[in-house]
Amino acid sequence: MIEPQILKGFRDFLPEKALERKRLIHILEDAFESFGFLPIDTPVLEYKKVLLGKGGGETDKQIYEFTDKGKREVAMRFDLTVPFARFMAAHYNELYLPFKRYHIDKVWRGENTQRGRYREFVQCDFDIVGIDSSSADFEILLLMYTSFTKLGIEGVTIKLAHRGIFNRFLENLNIKEHSVEIMRSVDKISKIGEEAVLEILSGIIDQETALKILGYIKPENTFLETLQKITDFAGGSGEDVQRLEEIYTFFTSLGIENSFVLDPSITRGLDYYTGIVYETFLDKLPGIGSVCSGGRYNNLASLYTKQNLPGVGSSIGLDRLMAALDELSDGNGKRHATDIIVTCMNVLDMKEYYRISGIFRDKGFTCEVYLSKKKLSAQFSYAEKKGIPIALLIGEDELSAGKFSVRDLSSRESFNMLSLDEAVVTCNKIIRKD
Amino acid sequence: MIEPQILKGFRDFLPEKALERKRLIHILEDAFESFGFLPIDTPVLEYKKVLLGKGGGETDKQIYEFTDKGKREVAMRFDLTVPFARFMAAHYNELYLPFKRYHIDKVWRGENTQRGRYREFVQCDFDIVGIDSSSADFEILLLMYTSFTKLGIEGVTIKLAHRGIFNRFLENLNIKEHSVEIMRSVDKISKIGEEAVLEILSGIIDQETALKILGYIKPENTFLETLQKITDFAGGSGEDVQRLEEIYTFFTSLGIENSFVLDPSITRGLDYYTGIVYETFLDKLPGIGSVCSGGRYNNLASLYTKQNLPGVGSSIGLDRLMAALDELSDGNGKRHATDIIVTCMNVLDMKEYYRISGIFRDKGFTCEVYLSKKKLSAQFSYAEKKGIPIALLIGEDELSAGKFSVRDLSSRESFNMLSLDEAVVTCNKIIRKD
Repeated sequence: MIEPQILKGFRDFLPEKALERKRLIHILEDAFESFGFLPIDTPVLEYKKVLLGKGGGETDKQIYEFTDKGKREVAMRFDLTVPFARFMAAHYNELYLPFKRYHIDKVWRGENTQRGRYREFVQCDFDIVGIDSSSADFEILLLMYTSFTKLGIEGVTIKLAHRGIFNRFLENLNIKEHSVEIMRSVDKISKIGEEAVLEILSGIIDQETALKILGYIKPENTFLETLQKITDFAGGSGEDVQRLEEIYTFFTSLGIENSFVLDPSITRGLDYYTGIVYETFLDKLPGIGSVCSGGRYNNLASLYTKQNLPGVGSSIGLDRLMAALDELSDGNGKRHATDIIVTCMNVLDMKEYYRISGIFRDKGFTCEVYLSKKKLSAQFSYAEKKGIPIALLIGEDELSAGKFSVRDLSSRESFNMLSLDEAVVTCNKIIRKD
Repeated sequence: MIEPQILKGFRDFLPEKALERKRLIHILEDAFESFGFLPIDTPVLEYKKVLLGKGGGETDKQIYEFTDKGKREVAMRFDLTVPFARFMAAHYNELYLPFKRYHIDKVWRGENTQRGRYREFVQCDFDIVGIDSSSADFEILLLMYTSFTKLGIEGVTIKLAHRGIFNRFLENLNIKEHSVEIMRSVDKISKIGEEAVLEILSGIIDQETALKILGYIKPENTFLETLQKITDFAGGSGEDVQRLEEIYTFFTSLGIENSFVLDPSITRGLDYYTGIVYETFLDKLPGIGSVCSGGRYNNLASLYTKQNLPGVGSSIGLDRLMAALDELSDGNGKRHATDIIVTCMNVLDMKEYYRISGIFRDKGFTCEVYLSKKKLSAQFSYAEKKGIPIALLIGEDELSAGKFSVRDLSSRESFNMLSLDEAVVTCNKIIRKD
């Protein structure tokens, strides 16, 4: 006998969780497509040199890599960005720009699982490639806002900043050579606090400069006040400041400015970002960190092509979001997947049950037949475990009269000998109540 | 520069193909759920010993396997059946029986790609586990029939047989010890023809017996005539024959008997099938082989648990089905994903375009804003490449009057200065025509 165990950091999804993830993905797909974003797919396995590029990063240690039976060095994708860059380079001539794609699928990283991280998890990426404009920056932010609205999550704050303004500020201070280190330290402020950041910064630059940086990254009361302050710190306006002004005008014209905060401490440590950067927090669960992050990058696919492909994009961490939704939900509003069970009263009438289940499916219900003759209590117990709210009881009387008896399995009320129309109305009432 | 190449047997999906696959998967998910089947998910990577079990088969050569950085011997799943068996053993106590699950996802096999096979492909499996009844057998067959109906594919024939009857027949002939070899040969008859099968059989058993087998596997004119013949060959009726009779009664009671053929040459070489077995053929494309196959098995998870789990299931080969649909389609009826493009006439009005695109999204359209000011011809050309049927042209006149000008991008007709309601009606007309 082989033990049916799974690998550490990997998970099975039982129907309830699998349905919930599928529901979220469908909502996101619909939101993305409603803005003209289209899906693509790329292989799970790629040449290792394609995925790792120049290599040398944290990724190298975490990637699942091996030599296949054809002696190729291959690896499983660890994100959806690198395959997208390779995709854009490979299909540049078949595509049109700007290209707006989304991609929702699994990626694999052999991470330390102690922090509640998984080694197999789902990313939802959406990007606009081939244009550098405030409209594209805004569109990604609007789509983030819309996605959370469609998911029914209230109290979402999207914090944004601009790497260009920060870079000008660091240039003014004559410490540009430390910019990556400084951005990575500043990025941690929401996790480790101001004092700890100051300590790290003081190890890189002098204390006075470090204090100036802390002054820069602190948001003021409003978007425009913060923008004014960082403009001054950076030595005046510029294209970067104008970009933020334009984006802010978009926010106010749609009346959604209250969901966006200009927070100069947002830097997204990754050094490939060049313009706006952003993270998304749930007001009720700030502790879980950002559930959707991204920014503008200068050149997506420079590893693979000479074509210059500026872009802007964002990524939703679906597993973190599912955990958050689980915590936020009151347990009510849980969906059932199967509306109706046709109980089996007599095995000889099984074909009638199938005929009737077909009628209710045609009326838009999900409907299954209980597959064997057991005590009704056993059939109800099956329905309960599966979360099915309605039973149809079809005995001799119902069959000979062409009627339907409906049972509300949670209230245990019965509605006997209904016409088809009455039964449909009754089922809909029970489901709406559920 | 790294060449952006992908591995042999692996594929990128550009938006058109990705959308089409997603459309098919959604239809299948809805069909499965309408019958009370629920989704599950399992890891892509598992312990190699869990996936390969006793090993020794063709699979061993094709599986992608390696040692991970934690020194575990792991492998990528090569089907969805073995992980399902492991899943049932692992979660037996959390589940209820009968358990009806579906699972649609990628699997990997390092197969010879010359025959147009892929090394990464999608399987759609659906099974009922925990019951051995004609209702469960029938339900899988009905769901196969329903799935193809919902996919809009006409002219589908599901060929079925029963391994138990064949086994009794072979026992009668005293050649049961050759049953696996014989079934594998017989299984090839649609590909290699009667004579080639006779030749193979004659290498296993004497010619007279081989001819009897050819007589057995030839379908008669009707389901019942064939059933009568194989019953006689098998030495009389039995539970297996009764099972087929019951299934046939289900067919006739729903009036779908014409889609099912009793074809005793169907054996499904795999030796784990014990009851009914079936394959599905498209009448217009018999050459592509079966697009949906399966059968009843005695014990799903015997490798991992002592719990006896009889089941019945089927699997759709989605890639083969997509190829078939592509061949069958006349090129018309191609779906567009984005309904409307709001053209950019003046970059200063961009925020108005976003407001207006939001209005049309709220009306149920997918609608994008062209992201920069270019010549209208360039914007139309973008729309054409993306298959967008409608442009909204919003200039100063439209903005000041609160009106909308709609352009049918395929007929090049314009409908100017419409009210919102008129514009919605016009857009719907254009889309229905498209």
